[in-house]
Amino acid sequence: MNIEDKAKQAKTASIHLAAAGATQKDEALGNIARTLLARKDEIINANRLDLAKAKADNLAPPLLKRLKFDESKIQEACEGVESLRCLADPVGQTLRAIELDDGLDLYKVSCPIGVIGVIFESRPDALVQISSLCLKSGNAVLLKGGAEAVNTNKILADLISNATEQAKIPDGWLGLMQTRTDVQEMLGMDPFIDLIIPRGSNAFVKYIMDHTRIPVLGHADGICHVYIDREADLAMAEAITVDSKCQYVSVCNAAETLLVHQEVAKTFLPRIKAALEKKNTEIRGCEKTAEIIEVIPATNEDWKTEYLDLIISIKIVNSIDTAVNHINRYGSGHTDVIVSQDKQRADNFMRLVDTADVMVNCSSRFSDGFRYGLGAEVGISTNKIHARGPVGMEGLMIYQWRLIGNGHIVSDYTGQGSKPFMHKPIQQEIK
Amino acid sequence: MNIEDKAKQAKTASIHLAAAGATQKDEALGNIARTLLARKDEIINANRLDLAKAKADNLAPPLLKRLKFDESKIQEACEGVESLRCLADPVGQTLRAIELDDGLDLYKVSCPIGVIGVIFESRPDALVQISSLCLKSGNAVLLKGGAEAVNTNKILADLISNATEQAKIPDGWLGLMQTRTDVQEMLGMDPFIDLIIPRGSNAFVKYIMDHTRIPVLGHADGICHVYIDREADLAMAEAITVDSKCQYVSVCNAAETLLVHQEVAKTFLPRIKAALEKKNTEIRGCEKTAEIIEVIPATNEDWKTEYLDLIISIKIVNSIDTAVNHINRYGSGHTDVIVSQDKQRADNFMRLVDTADVMVNCSSRFSDGFRYGLGAEVGISTNKIHARGPVGMEGLMIYQWRLIGNGHIVSDYTGQGSKPFMHKPIQQEIK
Repeated sequence: MNIEDKAKQAKTASIHLAAAGATQKDEALGNIARTLLARKDEIINANRLDLAKAKADNLAPPLLKRLKFDESKIQEACEGVESLRCLADPVGQTLRAIELDDGLDLYKVSCPIGVIGVIFESRPDALVQISSLCLKSGNAVLLKGGAEAVNTNKILADLISNATEQAKIPDGWLGLMQTRTDVQEMLGMDPFIDLIIPRGSNAFVKYIMDHTRIPVLGHADGICHVYIDREADLAMAEAITVDSKCQYVSVCNAAETLLVHQEVAKTFLPRIKAALEKKNTEIRGCEKTAEIIEVIPATNEDWKTEYLDLIISIKIVNSIDTAVNHINRYGSGHTDVIVSQDKQRADNFMRLVDTADVMVNCSSRFSDGFRYGLGAEVGISTNKIHARGPVGMEGLMIYQWRLIGNGHIVSDYTGQGSKPFMHKPIQQEIK
Repeated sequence: MNIEDKAKQAKTASIHLAAAGATQKDEALGNIARTLLARKDEIINANRLDLAKAKADNLAPPLLKRLKFDESKIQEACEGVESLRCLADPVGQTLRAIELDDGLDLYKVSCPIGVIGVIFESRPDALVQISSLCLKSGNAVLLKGGAEAVNTNKILADLISNATEQAKIPDGWLGLMQTRTDVQEMLGMDPFIDLIIPRGSNAFVKYIMDHTRIPVLGHADGICHVYIDREADLAMAEAITVDSKCQYVSVCNAAETLLVHQEVAKTFLPRIKAALEKKNTEIRGCEKTAEIIEVIPATNEDWKTEYLDLIISIKIVNSIDTAVNHINRYGSGHTDVIVSQDKQRADNFMRLVDTADVMVNCSSRFSDGFRYGLGAEVGISTNKIHARGPVGMEGLMIYQWRLIGNGHIVSDYTGQGSKPFMHKPIQQEIK
């Protein structure tokens, strides 16, 4: 089946999946968990094929570790699926209700978005997590996993489809894309796909954003800043800078640039240089920084660069406003931190930095759906509409207006002698 | 100043406008209302120039009426501005708060989207309404009004900018675009503009959607359906069909296609033909329709056409499912109606029709922000993300995550002996 057919089938399935009740979806989730556990040997065998190929291809050890899908990881993935069963159905919630007039009641009701296209990295557990999140939220999904995991993803998708078929979830609600060409084709499927969530390298996400008319939820860059204010506790500033930069360098919420207020630069820079070098971090700095500590000169390019590595750029700023302007100019609206003991200054920073996640006196690395307590994370968004920052299942939801009358027509509410509207909020769920 | 400069200036202004307090914004709104009233003669004079040109150009009377901006319309527009002052500030609302750990509190706080590009029709009152809505919600705005209203729009934008300057609202928060070329340029300003709201003809909105990477909120087509179910009250069905089609034909929420269940077709069709013809409505019908009443034969093109005129297409369907499938295939996801006395069938219809506004036993013409009681309407959206259906001020809002700690770092929460997260919902507003 080609991608257009899969997308069409997903669209058709999405209509019926949107109308599926909580019990049916939870039954299907139970079937998924049971099936994956019962057929774990087949999954592990498929995964062994992928691992063997990856080893032969000299994949780096961290990637091999992520690719591995053994019994304990299958167990963990199934616990994740089971945990979704305990959650209330996000579909069909009455978000607002207004009595427009006698017998004319308006309800704003939560509903799934429709068909979600998700492109994710090599971890096969992501396939289980994403597909079960989509199922619970009533969305059909087209998935593309990492090429390294092709055998594992194939069997997982087949098993999940079979398991949900038993619960009469409409066929085709889960479509698997296999190649980059499939993804290319998907980008043109705007009549059938409502939202794309790409995870992967900056360049890849940027490519997707630039080549489709389908809305994209996610982030390309993660150029995050830590700003050490004049009023910072410098011991705290050191710990937060090191954690933000070095705790896990290859992720989007790691810091890339350190901004230091000039009044604390002389005290702070030697101290942070020692701390960062202990972690083998290369330091690049502006001219003023170079007057205080020995650094590789930073160029304008550095402020625009997401190193994703043990490299940091440092810039001395003469005011909090300069820090804010630098961040708003070079940042990617992902996560930015101020370290300051002055509440007023911290508040100003929070109100003026145009970013999804703004932090006071803590590490940029907290910017994450799990740490935020949002449950499973769909992605991190630097969009300015729909959903921003770490996005949980609510990012897969939208709403529909439902107006229920008893023969009401607009002619009665317009012109001379027209009836007035009541517009009375009502507390009632839609029946 | 060219459009790029205006867009840049709006972006800069948007940062400070986002941080403006309720008092300052309300003061600015007060200034706007006072200024427009005090300088009404200048506005009326500018409007006279536009009206004279429009008359010379033989503009149709309804358009002339919309273009006219006299004392009573100025008064009305200012009352609209004043009514916004009474509303709570939509910015800075704590939407959710979670204690991640002792002294580490996460807040989800409402904030403006940033810079909104709005293209609207010839009514000058729209300029006043849109700019004051943007101001109240903390958004900068680039506006393009109808070419016919160029003089009126120019003076209104100038007066509004002056009035807000007095309240120290940052300069450049309101930019006026004057020509279609300006709009063209704006479409490429994705680094500075966060959302475009186009109002106008289908072709125009579609063009905008197809030629920008900036998210667009709105709708191109409004192909709305009325489905008369087997279980319909036929007197009610007649009234709702006539109102949905004829009450105001040139608008997006008017019905274009009538679907009739085959079991009631023989009774209903002659009756609705008489009622529609009394309103001078041309009827096009499918083959089965033509067996019952005399109609112009409908082609496949009819099901895809938004007539915006006194023309309706009729199709007989053999089941509610066929009706749903027709709507999901040919509709534009705007507004669709079922007329049925059977609650179960109406519920099924609501759950299966993929549309922004679904109605039971009332006219499609109710689909409107004012009638819904949402306050001023930003537009009607057929998008599947962010905002759907009639959109009020909440469509101009997004949120920011704010995490406030006291030296918290992620290293303490990972690996062996790591601290657990509490994830305790808190009731508290951000301080």
